[in-house]
Amino acid sequence: MPRDDAPAEAHLKTLARHRIAIESVAPEVDAGRFAAKGVVGRELEISADIFGDGHEVIGAAVLLRKEGSREAASFPMAPLGNDRWRTLMVPPEIGAYRFTIAAWRDLFGTWRHDTAKKVAAGQDVSVEIDEARQLLRGLRANGADGAALKGLREAVGGDGALDALMDPDTLALMGRIGPRANRTLYPRELPLWIDRERAVFGAWYELFPRSLGEGSNHGTFDDVIAHLPYVRDLGFDTLYFPPIHPIGETNRKGRNNSLRAEPGDVGSPYAIGSPDGGFREVHPELGTLRDFDRLVAAARDHGIEIALDVALNASPDHPWIEEHPDWFERRPDGTIRHAENPPKKYEDIVNFRYYLEDGPNLPFWQAIRDVFLFWADRGVLSFRVDNPHTKPFPFWEWIIAEVRKVHPEAIFLSEAFTRPKVMKRLAKVGFNQSYTYYTWRSTKEELTEYLEELTTSDARHVMRPNFFVNTPDINPFFLQYAGRPGFRTRLVMAASLSGAYGVYSGYELCEAEPLPGREEYLHSEKYEIKDRDFDADGHIKDDIRLMNRIRAEEPAMRDYLNLRFYPAHDDRVLYYGRMDEKAENFVLFHVLLDPHEPAEFGFEVPLWEFGLPDEASVEVQDLIHGNRFTWHGKSHRLTLDPHHRPFAIWRITPPGGGA
Amino acid sequence: MPRDDAPAEAHLKTLARHRIAIESVAPEVDAGRFAAKGVVGRELEISADIFGDGHEVIGAAVLLRKEGSREAASFPMAPLGNDRWRTLMVPPEIGAYRFTIAAWRDLFGTWRHDTAKKVAAGQDVSVEIDEARQLLRGLRANGADGAALKGLREAVGGDGALDALMDPDTLALMGRIGPRANRTLYPRELPLWIDRERAVFGAWYELFPRSLGEGSNHGTFDDVIAHLPYVRDLGFDTLYFPPIHPIGETNRKGRNNSLRAEPGDVGSPYAIGSPDGGFREVHPELGTLRDFDRLVAAARDHGIEIALDVALNASPDHPWIEEHPDWFERRPDGTIRHAENPPKKYEDIVNFRYYLEDGPNLPFWQAIRDVFLFWADRGVLSFRVDNPHTKPFPFWEWIIAEVRKVHPEAIFLSEAFTRPKVMKRLAKVGFNQSYTYYTWRSTKEELTEYLEELTTSDARHVMRPNFFVNTPDINPFFLQYAGRPGFRTRLVMAASLSGAYGVYSGYELCEAEPLPGREEYLHSEKYEIKDRDFDADGHIKDDIRLMNRIRAEEPAMRDYLNLRFYPAHDDRVLYYGRMDEKAENFVLFHVLLDPHEPAEFGFEVPLWEFGLPDEASVEVQDLIHGNRFTWHGKSHRLTLDPHHRPFAIWRITPPGGGA
Repeated sequence: MPRDDAPAEAHLKTLARHRIAIESVAPEVDAGRFAAKGVVGRELEISADIFGDGHEVIGAAVLLRKEGSREAASFPMAPLGNDRWRTLMVPPEIGAYRFTIAAWRDLFGTWRHDTAKKVAAGQDVSVEIDEARQLLRGLRANGADGAALKGLREAVGGDGALDALMDPDTLALMGRIGPRANRTLYPRELPLWIDRERAVFGAWYELFPRSLGEGSNHGTFDDVIAHLPYVRDLGFDTLYFPPIHPIGETNRKGRNNSLRAEPGDVGSPYAIGSPDGGFREVHPELGTLRDFDRLVAAARDHGIEIALDVALNASPDHPWIEEHPDWFERRPDGTIRHAENPPKKYEDIVNFRYYLEDGPNLPFWQAIRDVFLFWADRGVLSFRVDNPHTKPFPFWEWIIAEVRKVHPEAIFLSEAFTRPKVMKRLAKVGFNQSYTYYTWRSTKEELTEYLEELTTSDARHVMRPNFFVNTPDINPFFLQYAGRPGFRTRLVMAASLSGAYGVYSGYELCEAEPLPGREEYLHSEKYEIKDRDFDADGHIKDDIRLMNRIRAEEPAMRDYLNLRFYPAHDDRVLYYGRMDEKAENFVLFHVLLDPHEPAEFGFEVPLWEFGLPDEASVEVQDLIHGNRFTWHGKSHRLTLDPHHRPFAIWRITPPGGGA
Repeated sequence: MPRDDAPAEAHLKTLARHRIAIESVAPEVDAGRFAAKGVVGRELEISADIFGDGHEVIGAAVLLRKEGSREAASFPMAPLGNDRWRTLMVPPEIGAYRFTIAAWRDLFGTWRHDTAKKVAAGQDVSVEIDEARQLLRGLRANGADGAALKGLREAVGGDGALDALMDPDTLALMGRIGPRANRTLYPRELPLWIDRERAVFGAWYELFPRSLGEGSNHGTFDDVIAHLPYVRDLGFDTLYFPPIHPIGETNRKGRNNSLRAEPGDVGSPYAIGSPDGGFREVHPELGTLRDFDRLVAAARDHGIEIALDVALNASPDHPWIEEHPDWFERRPDGTIRHAENPPKKYEDIVNFRYYLEDGPNLPFWQAIRDVFLFWADRGVLSFRVDNPHTKPFPFWEWIIAEVRKVHPEAIFLSEAFTRPKVMKRLAKVGFNQSYTYYTWRSTKEELTEYLEELTTSDARHVMRPNFFVNTPDINPFFLQYAGRPGFRTRLVMAASLSGAYGVYSGYELCEAEPLPGREEYLHSEKYEIKDRDFDADGHIKDDIRLMNRIRAEEPAMRDYLNLRFYPAHDDRVLYYGRMDEKAENFVLFHVLLDPHEPAEFGFEVPLWEFGLPDEASVEVQDLIHGNRFTWHGKSHRLTLDPHHRPFAIWRITPPGGGA
């Protein structure tokens, strides 16, 4: 039958351009819909399944360009076995990149592979040498490669042709400039977002500025400035405040979240807005914007960044309610809609309106973007976003991208204690780091499983944990009964299992008095001023200093993705290590999860990580006390006592390794 | 600072259209680059992670259309938990489809959910009822829904408003016609290919027509016609021939693959082409094309399909070598390039040239497409493709698509005993079924792991196995020493672990004499005519009849993806079952993998599959002997003897189930 081949031919030509299969590229997030994340100056692995038909030798490279630039850098990929290829690269700058993969038939590589076998079998290869001469035709190169090519052409013209063609230098030269056939491009360019290191490696301390006044007086930004040495001494690098904006009066909550505030009650800072202003103003009792600017500068002088809370709640007194009635939801009776989680009502805050009937509420989105930019322009580059999962995902995706255009160093921490896929989606739309379920993972099995998910599943390409040991909202049940040993181990684990971690003020004093039966604090600081004695008996500030020192000094601590668990023969002991990417620094942790009873247990020194046999010896330094000794062989025993010190930390130096 | 918001606004509006997250859609193959596969009339599950911001009720549907049609059918999805949603649909026709997913905020669902909680808490909901009235505005419906909507509106105007709104019928009505906000479409339309059932469920028998002559005379198509009752009696539905084309004389291989053919040697049918023709002609000694057509018709009368081998090898005598010099690779000395796998050379076949310097060798691709169409037009709709992995992937992708435009029922079986990812790629580009590694999986652990990969990994969306127990190329080592018990168990497993399976002639006679030390047959039929006594002692034709009968009679056997392994307490016993999608038919298999020693072992009746407690009883029928009895409780014992019968097959009828 006659056929019209024109459309089939066009389709054929498109298909035919993809002779090499390039599949299962990693990192690739939702087919490139979202950016995978990396860190400036830190190795990033890009890998893929790559193969051709038949048994020919192929070559492949990653092509990487900065967003907005047309010039791509090429990184050769190498095979790992089972048709998996990869390259390791180090992104040089913060910002948005795109990459794709090219692969091709390596004609010289195939020729050499086949001809070597024929030579070994004693076959005549004179025609093969002619084939090689054909392959060399039309090649061009400059500089050293040009000179080498010229030399090769001369050698190939004479008696030494085969030797010259089989020379390893020739193989290397041809790998760079040799003939590439059927060059195939992966069909998508995939986005990458490269962060500064602080996005994944930081120690956060949270405090309510109003609690830093003398006694129970309302604290000020100047009181915070006076407190900076304390924060610095503990070793924290990020100081985070709950909202610092004017607090509403209407339906203000009283102490312990009571519905009626008594006179003098300070209210929840999450009910934002009063006649004194809203998201771009500061609560008058804390000081002025100028005071705040001084605080930011003073913190910077201490090596501390200020992080602000962005909680998109308006009190009924927020000026926008009058100025922008369209930005709020209203009910059929004309009243404004309060926040609610039926049957509970939150009458001290009202809901913003993110969408109108026919699309996004553009002026409101722009206003919130401008709130972030307002604070970023004042030097605040870390934002903890309150409950982002109750706001539309596209809203965050757009705002984060917009803020990054001006401040690519901005860090957005997602406070979304919600379902796993929602939490991960927020990481996809751009949040640099996420509160996690760490707070509720207490057993060895829970911790191991969760950390393996965070560090080895696809989630690792987008979601970076920030392990908060407690928050003003969460007084974990475990800490309510575990006492000081529990505070110590939860701190040690947060600081060593995750790159970023956080502590909310009072934790160092082992505060844990709960609202009875609830995972909340009695006399929550959200509703009243706290007067703390930061030198009170039983504090764990030494542990905090220790952990922040180890984090600062040991290179292995900088990348949480290097975490590995090792065998300790007791279900109450979590045992893990981290090795830096150069394999020069290796730190091991033993943590006793049982806050009551000691454990004496056997464990294995992971000699295999250094390629050492079971009977090898390694030099060890106890990173708590500083003493050095030798571990002989793989099997050892250790005792940990919750009432003495429920953890141990070691640095191992393999034979021939650096100190 | 002043900002140009125009591009940001445009980006925002695009983003904002995707308020609902739709992720991890299954089946989705390489971001929609390839079609996932289904079977006409058989349930297909489409699932995705779907969620919105906040806690509102959402709705979702799969939109499915036939390729080329604009009209999509909508299939509502239901939540499975953990934000996973799915629908089950039954594709009505063979062919290409596309689907996508829509999801939306279900305004009435959310209203009802929240209001029910407020009612339960005794709160006043009069404003909520007004909200519901607003939601009903602007809705439209026809037919029964229209009448119901009218009734609802009337009820909502009066005192019974709340009761009417809370009525389950109202919820169902609103699910169909209610207000949907922020309707979000998944960004891709994903291709599906729906096959006829034979693509996944068939019993293949392979024979060399030339061996069916009287004694060692060259057989003909008429001899095959005479042999059809034998094939039908064994229960096979597909009869597959190695190439039936004219065989080359130049460098013809002799018996046992010797380099020189003796006078009278028939040569390998894989060296295709002689002065008598090539891919569109038949070997004269077999008969004429007209004889072949009679064979196809006669086979159809027996319920048997003919499958042909497409081996893209040309003998040096193929007419195309003269007619189309551009279709072959040549060496610098002007000679044609023979096939080789250095240092081995295959001088009886030459290589086609798939690509020219500047792109695909279009006329050649079209010629091969036309070869498939030529045979398909003669009624051959199953093609076993020889070594497809040594030809370019785009070549197959284009040819398969082209053939399907005319013959959507065509079945392509990929003979690619190659690396896993290459094998899977061929399935992606369109091959309906694949030879697998079954031949080399012998132990319980190997078989379990491999079958779980085939039936539960992402491979299941594209790659359907055809388990050949042997082929003219492969005389498996296991069968060389296992003897008749091994032939029986390998047959039983192939026929029951996979939907499609195949047997190469001689297997039923337990032929296994090897080339010493090789996984090949001595006196391979590829190079000589075989004269077999199909009634010879020791045949296993009863087993073949049994398995093909069970496959035909038990609905559970039709879909291999329903395979489950169960506990038998002996490492030599493979124990598995299959249940049909209606949960009405359940067949269990015990297979003793040890061909030498008997096993007495305990096993568990999977009562849990029917939701039954451990002490329940079920009716059982022995599908080999037909007797019926009752199994009381979960734990049982069984003895299998390789020299008696190394397998057992049971049909279980749960209480209340059909016979």
